[in-house]
Amino acid sequence: MIGIFDSGIGGLTVVRGIMDAMPGYDLVYFGDTARTPYGTKSSRTVIEYCLQNTEFLVKNGAKMIVMACNTASSVATDAVRDSFDVPVFEVVTPAVERCLAATKKGVIGVIGTRATIASGIYEKQIMEKNPQAKVYCAPCPLLVPLVEEGWLKKPETNMIVKKYLHPLKVRQIDTLILGCTHYPILKNIIARKIGKRVAIIDSSTAMAERVKAFLTENPDFDEKLAKTAAARFFVSDITPQFRKTAKWIVGRPIDLEPANTEGLS
Amino acid sequence: MIGIFDSGIGGLTVVRGIMDAMPGYDLVYFGDTARTPYGTKSSRTVIEYCLQNTEFLVKNGAKMIVMACNTASSVATDAVRDSFDVPVFEVVTPAVERCLAATKKGVIGVIGTRATIASGIYEKQIMEKNPQAKVYCAPCPLLVPLVEEGWLKKPETNMIVKKYLHPLKVRQIDTLILGCTHYPILKNIIARKIGKRVAIIDSSTAMAERVKAFLTENPDFDEKLAKTAAARFFVSDITPQFRKTAKWIVGRPIDLEPANTEGLS
Repeated sequence: MIGIFDSGIGGLTVVRGIMDAMPGYDLVYFGDTARTPYGTKSSRTVIEYCLQNTEFLVKNGAKMIVMACNTASSVATDAVRDSFDVPVFEVVTPAVERCLAATKKGVIGVIGTRATIASGIYEKQIMEKNPQAKVYCAPCPLLVPLVEEGWLKKPETNMIVKKYLHPLKVRQIDTLILGCTHYPILKNIIARKIGKRVAIIDSSTAMAERVKAFLTENPDFDEKLAKTAAARFFVSDITPQFRKTAKWIVGRPIDLEPANTEGLS
Repeated sequence: MIGIFDSGIGGLTVVRGIMDAMPGYDLVYFGDTARTPYGTKSSRTVIEYCLQNTEFLVKNGAKMIVMACNTASSVATDAVRDSFDVPVFEVVTPAVERCLAATKKGVIGVIGTRATIASGIYEKQIMEKNPQAKVYCAPCPLLVPLVEEGWLKKPETNMIVKKYLHPLKVRQIDTLILGCTHYPILKNIIARKIGKRVAIIDSSTAMAERVKAFLTENPDFDEKLAKTAAARFFVSDITPQFRKTAKWIVGRPIDLEPANTEGLS
């Protein structure tokens, strides 16, 4: 089946994208809610956690790995690919490709966690493919807690989004990458604050398309994947708030199962 | 030496309180920055982390344990006391005692993380000691990330503090317990929003007084503690942001050392 992991609950936006784009595929999800968030932590720590998460998914039947977390994708992709013999998908490349197809002036904004922005991965990938591009990045560390609190329509959230986007707005970007799986949930506010003319690239739907394209191109591999529409959702910690947020992202109640990954790998 | 642990960096407010109240005592600190925050996680997970943290400190020479985290104190004190044969101090009791000495009307507000407020510990301890008291609690989950971002003087922080305190203000509390080690850093804003007549109880300084009183009452134990003014600060993850926040709480640069506690206990 398809294995998907995230630092917590936000990666369920990718699950939703995959379920919408490819209904019927069996999924196993792991959300590291006991150690969330990753975006404020060091690369070394995030890499260690990602190796443990991947090992857990592979042991639970995953034949391919989707890293549904921009922080993990930014710092741990090479380590995960080097350590496991399954296809590994990260969320950065599909977003960059979609962004380069969308931009007209090549003036691109990227928002993400502190760790994602510090990694410089979006800038690097964009410049490799389009050396003429101008890339402006802004870390938005408070957006994850605001989403997890469900503060989607509060004036404070509006103000904070506006403050974070201001340096990108003055640069007159024409395309904005939402470089964190939590941000699609704030897409309406972000769109309003950055302005109508800016194309918004949602990494969670870009990722789902990428996975779908891979399976179309690799029918032999695709054949090996179960398609009984079964889905299991493991998390390293369960609280009422996590349940609430999960239900609300996926759009229906899901059964969260406890899992312990510490000490793995 | 005195061992102190916290879910992250916020517990350094307690270290500062202890250093001010009892200069010269040797300290060993452990901040679980790799798994921070605790306040959004389940009791079971927090207990497991606290046992690991305590084991780490005891192995590194701690003769007594100060739990400088309200979430940890609220849910894990019994587990830590049952598992280790050293004096264990939690941060709730000293704050409650100071609060009951300060309140005139017995109408008390408590703010803390989601986990601390859900534990009901402050309410329980206050009602045990003063059954006539009225206790109103408000979880303030966004204040920890705001403090960690250093957003101390932003209008958004003002608005969020005001929103969180509103239900306590309408109850006309006369005393407010800051039930999280991060909150003393926002004391000025909180005091302004809750109003001048409300006494504010800072659990970090209450804790330091409690430890000092214990050592005065137990001179034989006190004699065993080293007093060379040495202090070591271990953290499970190090980032530039953690260094910056640590420096700024303690009031001078401190040397953060990496430590791995996963899999302990």
